[in-house]
Amino acid sequence: MQNRILVINPNSTAAVTRGIDEAVNCLRFQGGPVIEVVDLPEGPPGIQTQGDVERVVPLLIQLVSRRDDVGAYVVACYSDPGVHVLREITPRPVLGIAEGAILTALTIGARFGAIAILRKSIPRHLRAVGGMGLSSRMAGERAIDLGVVELTNRERTMARMIEVGRELRDLDGADVIVMGCSGMASYRQPLEVALGIPVVEPTQAAVAWMIGRMRLPWPVPLD
Amino acid sequence: MQNRILVINPNSTAAVTRGIDEAVNCLRFQGGPVIEVVDLPEGPPGIQTQGDVERVVPLLIQLVSRRDDVGAYVVACYSDPGVHVLREITPRPVLGIAEGAILTALTIGARFGAIAILRKSIPRHLRAVGGMGLSSRMAGERAIDLGVVELTNRERTMARMIEVGRELRDLDGADVIVMGCSGMASYRQPLEVALGIPVVEPTQAAVAWMIGRMRLPWPVPLD
Amino acid sequence: MQNRILVINPNSTAAVTRGIDEAVNCLRFQGGPVIEVVDLPEGPPGIQTQGDVERVVPLLIQLVSRRDDVGAYVVACYSDPGVHVLREITPRPVLGIAEGAILTALTIGARFGAIAILRKSIPRHLRAVGGMGLSSRMAGERAIDLGVVELTNRERTMARMIEVGRELRDLDGADVIVMGCSGMASYRQPLEVALGIPVVEPTQAAVAWMIGRMRLPWPVPLD
Amino acid sequence: MQNRILVINPNSTAAVTRGIDEAVNCLRFQGGPVIEVVDLPEGPPGIQTQGDVERVVPLLIQLVSRRDDVGAYVVACYSDPGVHVLREITPRPVLGIAEGAILTALTIGARFGAIAILRKSIPRHLRAVGGMGLSSRMAGERAIDLGVVELTNRERTMARMIEVGRELRDLDGADVIVMGCSGMASYRQPLEVALGIPVVEPTQAAVAWMIGRMRLPWPVPLD
Amino acid sequence: MQNRILVINPNSTAAVTRGIDEAVNCLRFQGGPVIEVVDLPEGPPGIQTQGDVERVVPLLIQLVSRRDDVGAYVVACYSDPGVHVLREITPRPVLGIAEGAILTALTIGARFGAIAILRKSIPRHLRAVGGMGLSSRMAGERAIDLGVVELTNRERTMARMIEVGRELRDLDGADVIVMGCSGMASYRQPLEVALGIPVVEPTQAAVAWMIGRMRLPWPVPLD
Amino acid sequence: MQNRILVINPNSTAAVTRGIDEAVNCLRFQGGPVIEVVDLPEGPPGIQTQGDVERVVPLLIQLVSRRDDVGAYVVACYSDPGVHVLREITPRPVLGIAEGAILTALTIGARFGAIAILRKSIPRHLRAVGGMGLSSRMAGERAIDLGVVELTNRERTMARMIEVGRELRDLDGADVIVMGCSGMASYRQPLEVALGIPVVEPTQAAVAWMIGRMRLPWPVPLD
Repeated sequence: MQNRILVINPNSTAAVTRGIDEAVNCLRFQGGPVIEVVDLPEGPPGIQTQGDVERVVPLLIQLVSRRDDVGAYVVACYSDPGVHVLREITPRPVLGIAEGAILTALTIGARFGAIAILRKSIPRHLRAVGGMGLSSRMAGERAIDLGVVELTNRERTMARMIEVGRELRDLDGADVIVMGCSGMASYRQPLEVALGIPVVEPTQAAVAWMIGRMRLPWPVPLD
Repeated sequence: MQNRILVINPNSTAAVTRGIDEAVNCLRFQGGPVIEVVDLPEGPPGIQTQGDVERVVPLLIQLVSRRDDVGAYVVACYSDPGVHVLREITPRPVLGIAEGAILTALTIGARFGAIAILRKSIPRHLRAVGGMGLSSRMAGERAIDLGVVELTNRERTMARMIEVGRELRDLDGADVIVMGCSGMASYRQPLEVALGIPVVEPTQAAVAWMIGRMRLPWPVPLD
Repeated sequence: MQNRILVINPNSTAAVTRGIDEAVNCLRFQGGPVIEVVDLPEGPPGIQTQGDVERVVPLLIQLVSRRDDVGAYVVACYSDPGVHVLREITPRPVLGIAEGAILTALTIGARFGAIAILRKSIPRHLRAVGGMGLSSRMAGERAIDLGVVELTNRERTMARMIEVGRELRDLDGADVIVMGCSGMASYRQPLEVALGIPVVEPTQAAVAWMIGRMRLPWPVPLD
Repeated sequence: MQNRILVINPNSTAAVTRGIDEAVNCLRFQGGPVIEVVDLPEGPPGIQTQGDVERVVPLLIQLVSRRDDVGAYVVACYSDPGVHVLREITPRPVLGIAEGAILTALTIGARFGAIAILRKSIPRHLRAVGGMGLSSRMAGERAIDLGVVELTNRERTMARMIEVGRELRDLDGADVIVMGCSGMASYRQPLEVALGIPVVEPTQAAVAWMIGRMRLPWPVPLD
Repeated sequence: MQNRILVINPNSTAAVTRGIDEAVNCLRFQGGPVIEVVDLPEGPPGIQTQGDVERVVPLLIQLVSRRDDVGAYVVACYSDPGVHVLREITPRPVLGIAEGAILTALTIGARFGAIAILRKSIPRHLRAVGGMGLSSRMAGERAIDLGVVELTNRERTMARMIEVGRELRDLDGADVIVMGCSGMASYRQPLEVALGIPVVEPTQAAVAWMIGRMRLPWPVPLD
Repeated sequence: MQNRILVINPNSTAAVTRGIDEAVNCLRFQGGPVIEVVDLPEGPPGIQTQGDVERVVPLLIQLVSRRDDVGAYVVACYSDPGVHVLREITPRPVLGIAEGAILTALTIGARFGAIAILRKSIPRHLRAVGGMGLSSRMAGERAIDLGVVELTNRERTMARMIEVGRELRDLDGADVIVMGCSGMASYRQPLEVALGIPVVEPTQAAVAWMIGRMRLPWPVPLD
């Protein structure tokens, strides 16, 4: 077994990669897997459209094909780009952070609410939740709808997350929140405190799952 | 953090406990959590009815209340007895092996099929899958329907598992199989080879998940 | 046939038992079954948590085992504690008031809304609705969120019920309301008048159903 | 309250009406409602198509409008013709036998299987189950597919019912069976014995429910 | 093939018929089918209740039986009266505008919201969406709730449509809107501009579909 | 409006392209749109895996970007590659043949069954059906599982299609069949005759829909 998890930020923004790297620090320990976080230098600065998703899939295929020195892969974008194709080309476990976070949330609460960055990403996320057969467990998804510049304003971003989290909790009936973005783990705890219900940070959820999963002798490689 | 996972076989049959203990051996490693497997000496020899489920819940509550020296709990019975109440009394993650296995299977295939030991357990399991909102991802559940004596016949048990697995695959359309029982991990690999599709052993799936999950700083304890 | 329905208030609060007893008065008639309402003196004062649910299940099993002089059982708590296990130990019909009320509501409107007393009960109720496979018929559930002292204030309680009922009707799209509590039947009619849509009182709904059901020659006792 | 239930066989075949009349005998008792069974002399001999359904709806509207001397109405055809429109024109409870039987079955087992007379009725029944939001609780529906002449052969009919019931139980996973026809209650018990799982006769299920329901003070008549 | 589509407004209000006729003008072209719009002079002025639905079904059956000189039928009422029975009596395609609009909306957005005229029609529409198995794709339905007189006030009607459309978009999460009425196509474009998300006019959607569908050699007439 | 539909066979096999071209002949008429069928010379010979899907998406994006001289696009592969991204880059309607066929089937029968070529494609198709929220309307999907050489044997292929169609009809309860492949329209009619239930050819279904849809003035191009 390769004692290493490759966490792939499928965009080219180093600040996000750093945010992810810090987020998974709590999952690094003596004897545990190396958790390596990389990005796609040729990827777009962020993934906001289906077009962005499609653009990074070939890059993910290349990267995973090249990096077979690891025990598990985590695709650290809430649109889970490429996870189904990656599972075809490697026998090792592959997890997207959306599925990682959502399935984790199912073991915490009755209905999860998701916080998106951009409103226009919500239909794409809803398609994915439908594809997982989980629509009946979703309370709703709402967006903070802040642009790149506004997102650099931590106070403003925090305020919007709390506002949207309250709507998900009070209007939509969510009892657990999933953050629908990567690289923003530092907002998780204050958001949880403000809302009083658990908040799942997706990259942490997905990487945590893979630590043990990579040690399982299954599934066997299939043709 | 308590670097220990408590795996609770909620019946009193030591052979099952030993089977579970061996099953999780592949998840023990230097630096990783101690994986302690215990049983309920006052529990029934097996959990076959809703009555058995109800009987062990108070015992599980007592055990978890007493054993707060651990970082995570796994309830190693495919009926997931008591998981919702245990989540109320401890802030640490609690996972039943049915939910652990089924949610894992969702990341492997499109529709899972479950193999039960007894036919009369199937309605109980279906209620649980419905409660998880996952009916649309289930291909079906079928039982090997062997009694205690027959189960000691490994060849016969293996043959029935393969037979039932084929029905799930060919008649019901399963592309991943979940073993709906604990303590039978030694059947997993030959079953997978015979069927040619992945087979999830539930205790391994659940314990593997908790190795990382216990390190996460969330969810915070709620009132 | 034993011409008697045993309605079990699974808590120890006599005021609730009395409320239930009055609620079913409209269902008592010459020639019809005796409707006997009892409580569990050793039960908790109310059922607010999954822990409370689990605590009363063994008491319910004992009571039903001892009282086989009746033709049907109704468990008069909106969490439907123990109904599945009780069905295993008696061949006579057993109905929880949540399922009784919700299935009745399905024959009245397109989407039901439920009024809970406490917000923290909602995830438990949602799990049950999911387990019944009825999530798509539920408009939502909202809580009046009043404490024990406030609940003794009839005016305040009525006002909150109407408020929450309006939210279910106007924000969530409910066209029939289910009261998610027992012993509060006296609020039903004024609530219905205030909302202008039908309001189902769960104990009445469940007991009414059993009056005829207890006379059916089925299901036959199964092993 | 009018202490009478009007059971309407919406076809013109007196033999079916008599079968229904006998089926509800077990629900008649001193002090209980008069259970009056009528048919539609101008209706078709049987309801086999959507065209037959549509043809009887105006007749049902006329009959219910004229017969306001009753406390509840049961439409005794498994296609539940007209129940939604009848609920508009009378404030008294109206129940179709399909919904009566299916909702009853939900309180008995995890997944119901339905036995149709004719294969071509199945899509119509499935639409209704979908409209009730209950597809995830249905194991399947299968037809005995016997013509009018064959149906007069009791032995042949019984044999086919058992055959189809076994397929529903063993291939589709039903743990409770609903008879998808009226007037055949005499087959219920032997079928149940042969299958070893509960069998719900729909007219009995629906009429039994109304005995208590007609006494409830709700829902109030709405505009 | 009969190169003609018969669009049936199943009420007797000529203004609605004219509105439909104008709505489909954009679908008339040289070489394409004649699109003939008729109404039911004996039908009610509008379809507001299930009773209205039932009243027009026999009229629709008569009309379709008489008019076999066409290649396809569109029933231009958002309650889709009679579509299932009409499919029994003609081998040519029959489409209701609700199914036409909703299935079209599924190819445009992730969750559709519907705008009803009257609140009391919503449960009827929800039953239909459930019967189509599409509840998980519906964001919600809301009514402008204007009476006949108010509807003649174009400004007021437009304002309410925009208001309700915003609620569907912002509170319920719709990313595509379906107009739940016929004869109001002139409101479609300004509504779409005001909301910034696509708005589907149901008669246009249904008729557009039939232009090609009527040329397909299937389905073959079935007995 | 550009009076042309571009049908894209996203593989490089000219025989499939020819098969599609013949299939849509019945939809060509004087005054109607030009129906142009093209393939992707750089695409794989067939689409059998998620990897094949991903490989053709960039080619589809290029093609659609270049060919803005058309009124509608149909992606003629049952995996519907790229439809969501194509909808982002063109304001004109885009339809995949799987969604086109399945939504058409919903207007014909109660539950559709799909015939796949290869077994390993089924999970991919099921994900798509789940993503459309249509799992409850699907009877099942089964594969003829023939290799490239066997597929050239028309008799053998026909026999397998009929065999699999019968299983979908008799074991899974399908009342309408969807062919889960393109370029095989010549099998449609004999299959329908053999099965006695309607069979939908997906490219015909999708192209037929677009003939009218391309004339609609909506949706307007959004940002």
